[in-house]
Amino acid sequence: MDISAVNALSYEDFVNTFGNVVEKCPVITAAVWSRRPFVSLNALEAAISDFIDELPESGKEGILRCHPDLAGRDLQRGTLTRESRQEQAGAGMDVLTSGEAERMARLNEEYKKRFGFPFVICARMNDKANILRQLSERCQNKRAVERARGIEEVKKICRLRLQSLLLSDGANKL
Amino acid sequence: MDISAVNALSYEDFVNTFGNVVEKCPVITAAVWSRRPFVSLNALEAAISDFIDELPESGKEGILRCHPDLAGRDLQRGTLTRESRQEQAGAGMDVLTSGEAERMARLNEEYKKRFGFPFVICARMNDKANILRQLSERCQNKRAVERARGIEEVKKICRLRLQSLLLSDGANKL
Repeated sequence: MDISAVNALSYEDFVNTFGNVVEKCPVITAAVWSRRPFVSLNALEAAISDFIDELPESGKEGILRCHPDLAGRDLQRGTLTRESRQEQAGAGMDVLTSGEAERMARLNEEYKKRFGFPFVICARMNDKANILRQLSERCQNKRAVERARGIEEVKKICRLRLQSLLLSDGANKL
Repeated sequence: MDISAVNALSYEDFVNTFGNVVEKCPVITAAVWSRRPFVSLNALEAAISDFIDELPESGKEGILRCHPDLAGRDLQRGTLTRESRQEQAGAGMDVLTSGEAERMARLNEEYKKRFGFPFVICARMNDKANILRQLSERCQNKRAVERARGIEEVKKICRLRLQSLLLSDGANKL
């Protein structure tokens, strides 16, 4: 899909296509439709990024809270979104040893208790060992640092999801 | 559920319970968790209302775009959220005559084409005749007027959904 095809989408088709580039936040995609036309994939991505940056801190925390735990309850119950399922599987979150699973669960709980939002990391840019290491390290940060860091990761996830959607038909001029 | 029970919820349980008080916008509920404790149902509702009011105009349009058409494709396909299905059924949207259905579909398209977001009305506070009349009349408004009007209706829907959830166990002190 090239950018002119994106710009020609009704808001309904736009939201149906891109509604989960920020996990469980179709309202962000739906808001950004107001800013079309986009000159490129980068411009669409920038519009989403700008919208997020303009939210109050509570809104950014809200975005983080819409993310599932890594190797958490949603993965175990099969209730992850399609995108999250693929990303978590790609990073090996579905084949943890029992020791790794236990450590991940303990650190996820520690992180959520400390910050009031979940640990968010772009799983497609990290492997299992790296994710566990970062989760452990980031538990030590200050809350405002982690909120900003989580939002950076949300944007990386968003970029990769947008790329997958736009490049999936192989015919693009972005 | 009384307000002290609400205030004791983890963000995960809070979002699981109240995540659809604004249709398909769990991020709003998730954001508002940051503002707890709430002294009452009214305070929770006010926090949601304030969050919406502080969004840029594109964000308000985004909220409207997360709403399904009345008697539209989602109702026909069975893909409405539980709350929307009940509300639309309560207003008779699932038992329109073919003439009414045709008129509704035509006016919905006219409205969306004119404004770039769907017609939103609190179905639980209106009947079929009233909805059709208002849809027809509101098609004539200016865009900014309709955006504000749609958001007013979103807040009415939110209030009724909150009340239903909080009062559903019959034991409350709100």
